[in-house]
Amino acid sequence: MSETITILGAGAMGSALTTPATEGGHTVRLWGTWLDDALLDAVAAGKPHPRLGVVLDPRTGIHRSADLAAALDGATLVVLAVASDGVLDVARRAAPLMSPGTPLLVTTKGFGRDDEGAVQLLPTLLSPVLPGPLVVAGGPCKANEVAAGRPTATAYASVDGPALARAGRLRSAVYRIQYLSDVDGLEVAAAMKNVYAIALGIADGLSERSEVPWHNLKSAVFARAVVEMSELAEALGGTRETVFGLPGVGDLEVTGLSGRNKVYGARIGAGEDPTAALEAMRAAGNTVEGVPASVLAADLVDRLGLPGFGLLRALRAILASGAAAPSMLADAVLP
Amino acid sequence: MSETITILGAGAMGSALTTPATEGGHTVRLWGTWLDDALLDAVAAGKPHPRLGVVLDPRTGIHRSADLAAALDGATLVVLAVASDGVLDVARRAAPLMSPGTPLLVTTKGFGRDDEGAVQLLPTLLSPVLPGPLVVAGGPCKANEVAAGRPTATAYASVDGPALARAGRLRSAVYRIQYLSDVDGLEVAAAMKNVYAIALGIADGLSERSEVPWHNLKSAVFARAVVEMSELAEALGGTRETVFGLPGVGDLEVTGLSGRNKVYGARIGAGEDPTAALEAMRAAGNTVEGVPASVLAADLVDRLGLPGFGLLRALRAILASGAAAPSMLADAVLP
Repeated sequence: MSETITILGAGAMGSALTTPATEGGHTVRLWGTWLDDALLDAVAAGKPHPRLGVVLDPRTGIHRSADLAAALDGATLVVLAVASDGVLDVARRAAPLMSPGTPLLVTTKGFGRDDEGAVQLLPTLLSPVLPGPLVVAGGPCKANEVAAGRPTATAYASVDGPALARAGRLRSAVYRIQYLSDVDGLEVAAAMKNVYAIALGIADGLSERSEVPWHNLKSAVFARAVVEMSELAEALGGTRETVFGLPGVGDLEVTGLSGRNKVYGARIGAGEDPTAALEAMRAAGNTVEGVPASVLAADLVDRLGLPGFGLLRALRAILASGAAAPSMLADAVLP
Repeated sequence: MSETITILGAGAMGSALTTPATEGGHTVRLWGTWLDDALLDAVAAGKPHPRLGVVLDPRTGIHRSADLAAALDGATLVVLAVASDGVLDVARRAAPLMSPGTPLLVTTKGFGRDDEGAVQLLPTLLSPVLPGPLVVAGGPCKANEVAAGRPTATAYASVDGPALARAGRLRSAVYRIQYLSDVDGLEVAAAMKNVYAIALGIADGLSERSEVPWHNLKSAVFARAVVEMSELAEALGGTRETVFGLPGVGDLEVTGLSGRNKVYGARIGAGEDPTAALEAMRAAGNTVEGVPASVLAADLVDRLGLPGFGLLRALRAILASGAAAPSMLADAVLP
C-alpha cells in the first residue's frame, strides 16, 4: 500500500528524502518555502539539486510556497524539514491543512524558546501546534549521501507506535531506520551534536595549525561530549542508552567528519577569533547551528541547575570571548 | 615522594611514558627487549626515538635486554609495554626479579589463549604470573602525542586501590588519568578497538575509491562497534558504561583516526584483497593487531554462545575470504 508523502522544505534534507520515498513507490510531493525557489527551479528543470549535487526522481511533485494546501491535500505522511528558524511558522501554517491524525516526521533539530522565554526542545514546541502524532528523526544521516543512495542508518522516535510505523514507510534497501520510543533522548543528541562538533573541529584546527596530530585531545573531547549528551538526555526525561547508539555516538561521528560546525571549530582551533570566523562564514551564506545551540543548551543546563557540563560551558566561553581555545578545551575534558 | 619506575619495552608506548614519568620527578628506567636494541641505540645517542620522533629526557636510565635484574632492582612501579607476542614471556622473566607486592601497569592489549587453548583477555593470563597487583591502561592515547607532551586523557583500571594510586603517579599536567575498577570492561574495549578500526578504515577506503563520502556508513559502523564492545564487556563481567567513556568511545575514535588497523581497512575498502594487503603490510614491517584479534574475539563470542555481533562476524568473514566488503559491512550495521 503506497502513501502520499508530502515533504515540507526543499533544502538538503527534505529533498534528499525524496530518494528513499520515491524508491518505495509512494506518491511524493516536495514543497519549498519562499526561500527555496532557486532550488526548486533547478529541480523542475531536471538539473541536480544545488545543495545535493543529485538529480531528483522526476516523479517527485514540485510545489511552490503559495501552493501549500495542494501539497498537503490527501497526504498520509508529512515530513517537516525546514530550517530551524522557520519550522514553527511552517508547522502553524501546515497544521490546519493536514487531515486530523496525520503523522508528522520532523528532521529539523535544535532548541527554541517558549512564550515565557524558557529553552525547550523542538518537539515540546511543535506538539501543541500539530493535528497528529509527532515522529522525530536522528542518527548519522548526511543528506547528500541519502540523496545519492549510499547506505544510511537513521533512527526515528515516537511515543505513537502506528505513527512510527507510518513514518517507517520511508525505509528503503539502503536508507534504514532504527525505531525508538525515546523522543527526548534522540532530540537532545540531535540538538547537541552540532555544539560538540565545534569542539571536535577545534581539535582538528589545532592539528592543522601545529602540523602535528592532536588526536588524543580530539578523542577525549569526543568521549566527554557523549557523556555530557547522555547526562542532558537523562535530565530531560530521556535515557542514556539512546545517546550511546546511532542518535548520539553515530550522529556525533558523522557531524565531526564534515559540515559547517566542524569547519567553524577548525577555524577557531587554527587561531581565528571566534566572532570574526563566524561573521566570515555568515557573509559566505553559511549558518553555524551549533553556535546559538551552545548558548541555548548552556542556558538550559544553568536553569536546570545541573552540575558538570564542563565541555559545554567551556565552549560557550570560547565562542563568546575568544578565550584561549586549546587550554580551555584541554582543561574541560581531561580527567 | 618519588617512585622508581621501570618501563619494560622500549617501543613507542613504553618510551612515550618516560615523558610524564620524568616530568613527575621520578627515577625512570627504560628496559628494551632483544628486539629494541636499535631503538635504544638512538635514545642513548640523544637522537629522537625512531618510533616517536621525540628525544627522550636524558635522565631516563637505559637498560639493555640482558640487564633485566638491574632494571627492576628497587622498582616501586613496573610498566609492562612490550608487544603482545612477547608480553607473557617478559612477564614470566620479570616476576621473580620484582619485589613482592610491586604493582604492574600493563599497556599491552589483546586476547591470548590459555593452556587449554581457550581465548582469554590478557589480564586473566598475566595475573597468575605476577608477584603484585595488576593495573591496566586504556583510553585514547597515541604514544607519539604522549611523548611530545600533548594533552591526553587515559584510563587506568584495577581492583586494587593502592596499586591504582601508585600507577597514578605517572600523571602529569597534560597526561591525565581516569581511575576505574572495571578491568574487564576496559580490556574488552582496548582489545576490540583495533578490530573495529579495520571496519572504520573500510568505510574510509570506500570514500577514497569512489571519491564521494561514505560518512553515513562509517558512522553507523562506529555506533554499531560501540554497542558490540559494550555487549562483550558485559558478557565478560564488565560494565557497559566503561565502554561508553574514554576506554571504548574515546579509544575507538583515536584508533579510527590513524594507525595500522585503520590503514589496513582502508586498503580493503579501496578494493585490495584482504590477504594480499595484509601480506604487503607485513612485508613492510607493519603488524595489524586487529586481524588476529578479530579471529580470537569472534571465536570467543562463538564459545560463549552470544547472539548478535553481526559486525564482528562480518569482519571475520571479510578478512578471511575477501568477500565483498561494502555490501557485507552495510548488511552488518544497517538496522
